[in-house]
Amino acid sequence: MRVGVLGAKGKVGAAMVAGVESAEGLTFTTGVDAGDPLESLTETNTEVVIDFTHPNVVMDNLKFCIDNGIHAVVGTTGFTDERLDQVRRWVADEPDACVLIAPNFAIGAVLSMHFAAQAARFFESVEVIELHHPYKADAPSGTAVRTAKLIAEARKELPPNPDATSTGLDGARGADVDGVPVHSVRLAGLVAHQEVLFGTQGETLTIRHDSIDRTSFVPGVLLAVRRIREFAGLTVGIEPLLDLS
Amino acid sequence: MRVGVLGAKGKVGAAMVAGVESAEGLTFTTGVDAGDPLESLTETNTEVVIDFTHPNVVMDNLKFCIDNGIHAVVGTTGFTDERLDQVRRWVADEPDACVLIAPNFAIGAVLSMHFAAQAARFFESVEVIELHHPYKADAPSGTAVRTAKLIAEARKELPPNPDATSTGLDGARGADVDGVPVHSVRLAGLVAHQEVLFGTQGETLTIRHDSIDRTSFVPGVLLAVRRIREFAGLTVGIEPLLDLS
Amino acid sequence: MRVGVLGAKGKVGAAMVAGVESAEGLTFTTGVDAGDPLESLTETNTEVVIDFTHPNVVMDNLKFCIDNGIHAVVGTTGFTDERLDQVRRWVADEPDACVLIAPNFAIGAVLSMHFAAQAARFFESVEVIELHHPYKADAPSGTAVRTAKLIAEARKELPPNPDATSTGLDGARGADVDGVPVHSVRLAGLVAHQEVLFGTQGETLTIRHDSIDRTSFVPGVLLAVRRIREFAGLTVGIEPLLDLS
Amino acid sequence: MRVGVLGAKGKVGAAMVAGVESAEGLTFTTGVDAGDPLESLTETNTEVVIDFTHPNVVMDNLKFCIDNGIHAVVGTTGFTDERLDQVRRWVADEPDACVLIAPNFAIGAVLSMHFAAQAARFFESVEVIELHHPYKADAPSGTAVRTAKLIAEARKELPPNPDATSTGLDGARGADVDGVPVHSVRLAGLVAHQEVLFGTQGETLTIRHDSIDRTSFVPGVLLAVRRIREFAGLTVGIEPLLDLS
Repeated sequence: MRVGVLGAKGKVGAAMVAGVESAEGLTFTTGVDAGDPLESLTETNTEVVIDFTHPNVVMDNLKFCIDNGIHAVVGTTGFTDERLDQVRRWVADEPDACVLIAPNFAIGAVLSMHFAAQAARFFESVEVIELHHPYKADAPSGTAVRTAKLIAEARKELPPNPDATSTGLDGARGADVDGVPVHSVRLAGLVAHQEVLFGTQGETLTIRHDSIDRTSFVPGVLLAVRRIREFAGLTVGIEPLLDLS
Repeated sequence: MRVGVLGAKGKVGAAMVAGVESAEGLTFTTGVDAGDPLESLTETNTEVVIDFTHPNVVMDNLKFCIDNGIHAVVGTTGFTDERLDQVRRWVADEPDACVLIAPNFAIGAVLSMHFAAQAARFFESVEVIELHHPYKADAPSGTAVRTAKLIAEARKELPPNPDATSTGLDGARGADVDGVPVHSVRLAGLVAHQEVLFGTQGETLTIRHDSIDRTSFVPGVLLAVRRIREFAGLTVGIEPLLDLS
Repeated sequence: MRVGVLGAKGKVGAAMVAGVESAEGLTFTTGVDAGDPLESLTETNTEVVIDFTHPNVVMDNLKFCIDNGIHAVVGTTGFTDERLDQVRRWVADEPDACVLIAPNFAIGAVLSMHFAAQAARFFESVEVIELHHPYKADAPSGTAVRTAKLIAEARKELPPNPDATSTGLDGARGADVDGVPVHSVRLAGLVAHQEVLFGTQGETLTIRHDSIDRTSFVPGVLLAVRRIREFAGLTVGIEPLLDLS
Repeated sequence: MRVGVLGAKGKVGAAMVAGVESAEGLTFTTGVDAGDPLESLTETNTEVVIDFTHPNVVMDNLKFCIDNGIHAVVGTTGFTDERLDQVRRWVADEPDACVLIAPNFAIGAVLSMHFAAQAARFFESVEVIELHHPYKADAPSGTAVRTAKLIAEARKELPPNPDATSTGLDGARGADVDGVPVHSVRLAGLVAHQEVLFGTQGETLTIRHDSIDRTSFVPGVLLAVRRIREFAGLTVGIEPLLDLS
């Protein structure tokens, strides 16, 4: 499979070029960056592009790919519902076009959320602890909030977490995300980590994800590249590619 | 729902009686122990029995229940393939009979194994660490061996774990269960714990189950009692009741 | 060594009686409970008593022991500075009297706090996560607050934890105890657990204590009983007995 | 304080140059690499050198430093007892010379070992789990073996770990290092991690060290640079600088 990279000179893009080059069965065709013509994709017979660029340019990139029969695996941010609808209209006109847009390609993170949602119905209690480097601006992390919301949705017919706390200090019991306590640790020496703790009579189940390297998205992107042709139209998130059941 | 307990005076049975009595929507009818007549089940209009007895008596118990239209949730050990086939023949003659036999009712343990099997395809490396009290006779635990075999089955088309170990001490790399290293820790102060570690480029996923109390099977048994009527015939293991997908 | 137990019929006292009876080199003399005469201690030649009683009676117990040359290991709560001063005056008059009063006999908990205080000077960041059963009234736990205060004292000349959090939800970053964030998890299936996380460039150090059984104080009490004679006067806390350096 | 770096162009040396440059109160004077004259150290009035070079050249470097009144903080490997004795003789002739040679500058790792040795006397059971990337050649790691030996030394008058294992698979119970079981996990996505688990009646204590970045030695080296003048003669290991008590 012939694979090009848009945003090839960015940190993430460079990691993707290296990832494609060392992956069995994939051939790197061309890297395109700001100012480079998109035509180098067609000239090199690129079959799939990986796009880690910028919200300003990603829509033009997608239009070009769809028009030229190139499948796209996209990690660029900024996809509002409107933008997703626009992409849906484009691919509707090109039945063979395959576009996958995902906010998170780290397979471990995606599996963590999936498992957390599955386990949520079976435990009396659940809490989320996310732990990150101290330079992070938001607390809780976006992933922790998404995880807590998925859990809350799965538990909506269950009684709330038991909690007899009657005296204490502000903040001790964490942030409340739809009834799920979320605790944010910020510690030098960490990168990005999350633990979901479930408990019931006499037992607990913990699902922990540790990401210690900015390249942890590479295997997920390569998986998407390899399977993109099986998913005609627009696919959001890599979960459908994981064949979970 | 009217629920009886066979083996009611054993440790596990007593915990089950207490569990039924405090569960919403369930009524405890009668406890039967060695020497007590099974007829007390029919006399009290028992609809479902919980059987934590002994391999010597469980087959007679089951025959009685199936003949009398009582559903059975069974945690007694010793079910060989032959015994399971016998039960299958009995329930084939009674289309309304529902029998569930499970080696493990701890929901956390069952979910752990299910999630481990699902995650196994997506990571380069996997190892299992099980940790138990020091009075345990077998190492690895039966659960760890079962978990490793499920993982190995899911990974059978993947390359083996990368491992550059060239010098070392015997045993450092654990036991080999179908290619999955399994490490057994025996420590005072522990009860029964298991960690499955998955790793790939820059990220790891850990699924940990902690059981610190012999009553951790109670919620799983109660779940089975509540749903047994939906599962006609013989069901082995509680996984089908968890509606995982 | 001949050992008596005050409060012998309480849950904790009963565990202590069992602990003494199964300990090598210790002989159980007598158990005293509400209404029983203290004289049974002297009549049985008790050398050391273990007191897990009630703030209402513990001072009378101690006076009796000090007057009768019986050493005392005390886990009863409610020792204000005034009470401790009173005990100090009593033992000042009896140079051979040895009294040890400790809020926590779990050796693992005491070591955790000691190690946390030692490590505190060497890391940029520190946070505390304590995890308990959901029936606990206070959050954070008393042990977590004490731990955080010890850490804060050791770090008072260091810069505060780096933390770039600028947006977030109330409570996400935990409770602030003298500059140390403390997070309280309340989860069914847990007993009493605490993690102290330290981090600096590229590395983290975690000190975790898990107590899963109300008897975890027994080894610490037995250690105190065995060594009490070496510690004339009043000793507060078991740390001096641990010969840490 | 004026600080030079020997081996400045190696990976570790380059990280040290960056570390010195960004450290408050330290001034980087000069980097010396293979072929560069050592005289640039004296010409730039270097007061302390950091040496991460090669066993072939480190002894000449040390002789030069000692002769020229420059203190040395050394992370280079290959120091046999003979070499250490040679350095001791050199510094004996120069009462103001301060040389610190350490096999491990990661403060978290050194504290872990110190705490493990302190805790070892108080628990019935202890095991070590070390977890590394899969490209590591030795199992167990050198640090794990050193940790186990320190623990074994501290426990030499205690009974062995209780262990009722009677049936099992080869390797499940780990490698035996002086009676301490050591388990080695090799997993993609990890760097260098170690857990020491202690257990006794009802409680466990876990000391975990995670190193996720090759720069985790920098804070330890900078601490040594700052305090080297207080330690006349030869010091081996950074533990004496940590003022542990």
